[in-house]
Amino acid sequence: MSTTAALQDQIPHNHCWGCGPLNPDGLQIKSYLEGAETVCTFMPYAQHMAGPVHVVNGGIIATVIDCHSICTAIAHAYAAEGRAIGSAPEIWCATASLSVEYLRPTPIAAPMVLHARVTGSEGRRTTVACTVFSGETEVARAEVLAVRVRE
Amino acid sequence: MSTTAALQDQIPHNHCWGCGPLNPDGLQIKSYLEGAETVCTFMPYAQHMAGPVHVVNGGIIATVIDCHSICTAIAHAYAAEGRAIGSAPEIWCATASLSVEYLRPTPIAAPMVLHARVTGSEGRRTTVACTVFSGETEVARAEVLAVRVRE
Repeated sequence: MSTTAALQDQIPHNHCWGCGPLNPDGLQIKSYLEGAETVCTFMPYAQHMAGPVHVVNGGIIATVIDCHSICTAIAHAYAAEGRAIGSAPEIWCATASLSVEYLRPTPIAAPMVLHARVTGSEGRRTTVACTVFSGETEVARAEVLAVRVRE
Repeated sequence: MSTTAALQDQIPHNHCWGCGPLNPDGLQIKSYLEGAETVCTFMPYAQHMAGPVHVVNGGIIATVIDCHSICTAIAHAYAAEGRAIGSAPEIWCATASLSVEYLRPTPIAAPMVLHARVTGSEGRRTTVACTVFSGETEVARAEVLAVRVRE
């Protein structure tokens, strides 16, 4: 697994609104492998506000968590097979479940930094834990269950 | 609580990306009271695709669930005080937690229909159950814990 290119730039054919390089209208988040973790830094857009204008909408936070975690699970699946990301046969994962705890309001004027790691893997199912920081403050914590889609 | 106007058009000062009438770049979902439930019909945009282009991104689904459920909790809080939505003092709720089970892929070419209802309320905390249908098919199921923000 390359540590230099974003996971999303190695996963082919991705049109996803949250993480697809092929979606010109999407968020195009980028996730990087750093040791046993993956890290994603996302600067919310001005329009991603919640009801109060200075904090980020929970759905945007959930979207970035979901996509960062799914890309983490896909990268993990390639690595488990000792293969480069994007090599044939292609691996894709879908979200089976997503649980987010919103610990504190997330400021819209600062980048969100997500750290994710695989905490379990059995057959087609991979569990990913993800935390979201704004500066030094943990603002959200999540678990995502990814299921590998059959080719 | 009016059954004719959307909840979002009664809740004042809402700039939220998912449900704020005051956010020109947001999804502007609309939720309506129908008996003991609230119902929201949302047509995904073309760019809301997941990796595969024919299904909806999980983050968009989570966003619509979150906003529909929070507006449901806000409406419930006004009703519990016997007051019209939007009357002073204003009530606002934030998401404390969000759990979504994605049961099946959600087609992007059809409207998503969400049904939500309050399943518990204690002090500042309100629990909302939400289901998402595409046609006759239940595609997702969620629970949202809303916390009333102190004025």
